[in-house]
Amino acid sequence: MKPLVETLCVIGPGLIGSSILRRARLEPSIARHLIAVDRDAHVCDRARALNLADEITQDATAAVANADLVVLCVPVGVIPVVAAAIIPHMKAGAILTDVGSTRGSVVEGITPYLRPDIAYVPAHPMAGTEHSGPDAGFATLFENRWCLFTPAMNASPEAIATMEAFWQAMGARLRHMDVAHHDKICAIVSHLPHLLAFTICNTADTLADELRAEVLDFAASGFRDFTRIAASDPIMWRDIFLHNREALLEMLDRFSQDAQAMADAIRQDDEATIVRTIERGRRIRRNLIENKQA
Amino acid sequence: MKPLVETLCVIGPGLIGSSILRRARLEPSIARHLIAVDRDAHVCDRARALNLADEITQDATAAVANADLVVLCVPVGVIPVVAAAIIPHMKAGAILTDVGSTRGSVVEGITPYLRPDIAYVPAHPMAGTEHSGPDAGFATLFENRWCLFTPAMNASPEAIATMEAFWQAMGARLRHMDVAHHDKICAIVSHLPHLLAFTICNTADTLADELRAEVLDFAASGFRDFTRIAASDPIMWRDIFLHNREALLEMLDRFSQDAQAMADAIRQDDEATIVRTIERGRRIRRNLIENKQA
Ligand SMILES: NC(=O)c1ccc[n+]([C@@H]2O[C@H](COP(=O)([O-])OP(=O)(O)OC[C@H]3O[C@@H](n4cnc5c(N)ncnc54)[C@H](OP(=O)(O)O)[C@@H]3O)[C@@H](O)[C@H]2O)c1
Ligand SMILES: NC(=O)c1ccc[n+]([C@@H]2O[C@H](COP(=O)([O-])OP(=O)(O)OC[C@H]3O[C@@H](n4cnc5c(N)ncnc54)[C@H](OP(=O)(O)O)[C@@H]3O)[C@@H](O)[C@H]2O)c1
Repeated sequence: MKPLVETLCVIGPGLIGSSILRRARLEPSIARHLIAVDRDAHVCDRARALNLADEITQDATAAVANADLVVLCVPVGVIPVVAAAIIPHMKAGAILTDVGSTRGSVVEGITPYLRPDIAYVPAHPMAGTEHSGPDAGFATLFENRWCLFTPAMNASPEAIATMEAFWQAMGARLRHMDVAHHDKICAIVSHLPHLLAFTICNTADTLADELRAEVLDFAASGFRDFTRIAASDPIMWRDIFLHNREALLEMLDRFSQDAQAMADAIRQDDEATIVRTIERGRRIRRNLIENKQA
Repeated sequence: MKPLVETLCVIGPGLIGSSILRRARLEPSIARHLIAVDRDAHVCDRARALNLADEITQDATAAVANADLVVLCVPVGVIPVVAAAIIPHMKAGAILTDVGSTRGSVVEGITPYLRPDIAYVPAHPMAGTEHSGPDAGFATLFENRWCLFTPAMNASPEAIATMEAFWQAMGARLRHMDVAHHDKICAIVSHLPHLLAFTICNTADTLADELRAEVLDFAASGFRDFTRIAASDPIMWRDIFLHNREALLEMLDRFSQDAQAMADAIRQDDEATIVRTIERGRRIRRNLIENKQA
């Protein structure tokens, strides 16, 4: 059986990149030859020890010259930089994709470097953990998780179909949407919750010493679950916050107004507003449970 | 063996109250006779079906007349109301306690009704789930969870020792602290996280229809874990928010300032501040893990 692509090159074998490689190892229908690229010799050594790919190198330009599909798995702020460096060296007819968590800024950043003979088919797998690096990945990370496709550029229907089959082979469910919509959804379901979780940890960290110590002792009462997502990588999240700035700040603004309204209701003993707000919150939770998402 | 008390009376056999009764059923060292009081005949029927106590009644004043220990397990706004109704009917020498999640307002509300011959020994078990009612309780709810004692009133050392033994028999670990400290800790570890979780659900609920539907589809990317605690009971939380108003609004204010500082950093491309904030947040998470709380 002919695999989807002959040679798959993953740049950035961290949590997401190494999960793609691990899955490709298990599913021979994906690619015949696997290449992993990392700028750091130690990470390359680690990737070798984990046997993540057939070829592991620091030399991105040489690696992409032989690849039929190049997947950029680096922080969103770096995606255009790496794209600029590798695109001139890619094979005509190859496919370029990236897994970045934001779309608007990545598309804008990458567009000047695109070539008419390279299909750019971005797809964001909505899967992850709070861990990072090549050891953190696993082959089932994308199983039953959504992968959001935004409009492709310079791509034939075949190239798009190849990427759809690729993410299906990763175990993901597919959805197509436009860039602005993608960035708004991610702002509310992922980026704002992360920002708030980082922030409340920070607030707790600035409390007087005794109180701060007790936050740690008594965290089980809500704080703990609320902040689990705050263990994630700082550079990745810095980039996401900066590169989805507009949608994120808009959602934060709405949220801050809602929090302020709640504070006012508490200050003014406005029981009806408080109960209504809590009830609405619970409705969303109930819908999540019905949706089998909770 | 003589049990800790002869007759234990729980008023409000909901999540917390029914968990106390279930544990007392399993540990004969706690009480010889169990009484449950609920204002609602249907809840009494349900408590009977669950065999939660030896005597189940709607008549609180008759029930407390025979009790050596009365545990108020009703929402914090109602605790002083119920206390006012029952204290005149309690036996001299009996112990009164409540499990309310706030302390300042409860102590203030209950003090006018206290009697010199009744020991008031409040203790707040920091354990719960997002479910409520008599079916939600279970005997191990308090196992290895903290129970926070605030200063007792009109209480002999023996009465305090009885309540300590009581909560140890429930499986809890004990801590003593003053009222203001209790309310601040709970504001940051529990009440603020709940307020923020309710609020973000509310924000999501007010989004345009299409976006709102997709929040439900894509909730796995952070939103879901972040909002799990938002399924809790509206009346209980309305009361907690109103009755821990001062400490809660102070923590919310600090949090809002921190969130605003993060928004400013994002707006101004201030990478150092963003990374520092995320790093501090992660430090708290790491400490939780070292503390075996995560
Ligand atoms: N984690 C999630 O929840 C999640 C979910 C969906 C999408 N994503 C997106 O997936 C991408 C990767 O995230 P991840 O979680 O896999 O991160 P990760 O585990 O930290 O891996 C990041 C990879 O990018 C490389 N890298 C970082 N900076 C670089 C630079 N300046 N030049 C070249 N390579 C660089 C790293 O190399 P070194 O090891 O040498 O530093 C590493 O191989 C990001 O765009 C992220 O937004 C993440
Ligand atoms: N859930 C937690 O996480 C948690 C943790 C620690 C402490 N607490 C505290 O424990 C107490 C009980 O909470 P819970 O979670 O057990 O709540 P719950 O399951 O909703 O039970 C509340 C009980 O209070 C009764 N009640 C409500 N309003 C009343 C009124 N006006 N007059 C008389 N009885 C009334 C209810 O009776 P009906 O069934 O007839 O309405 C029910 O038996 C609250 O003070 C709460 O702050 C809760």
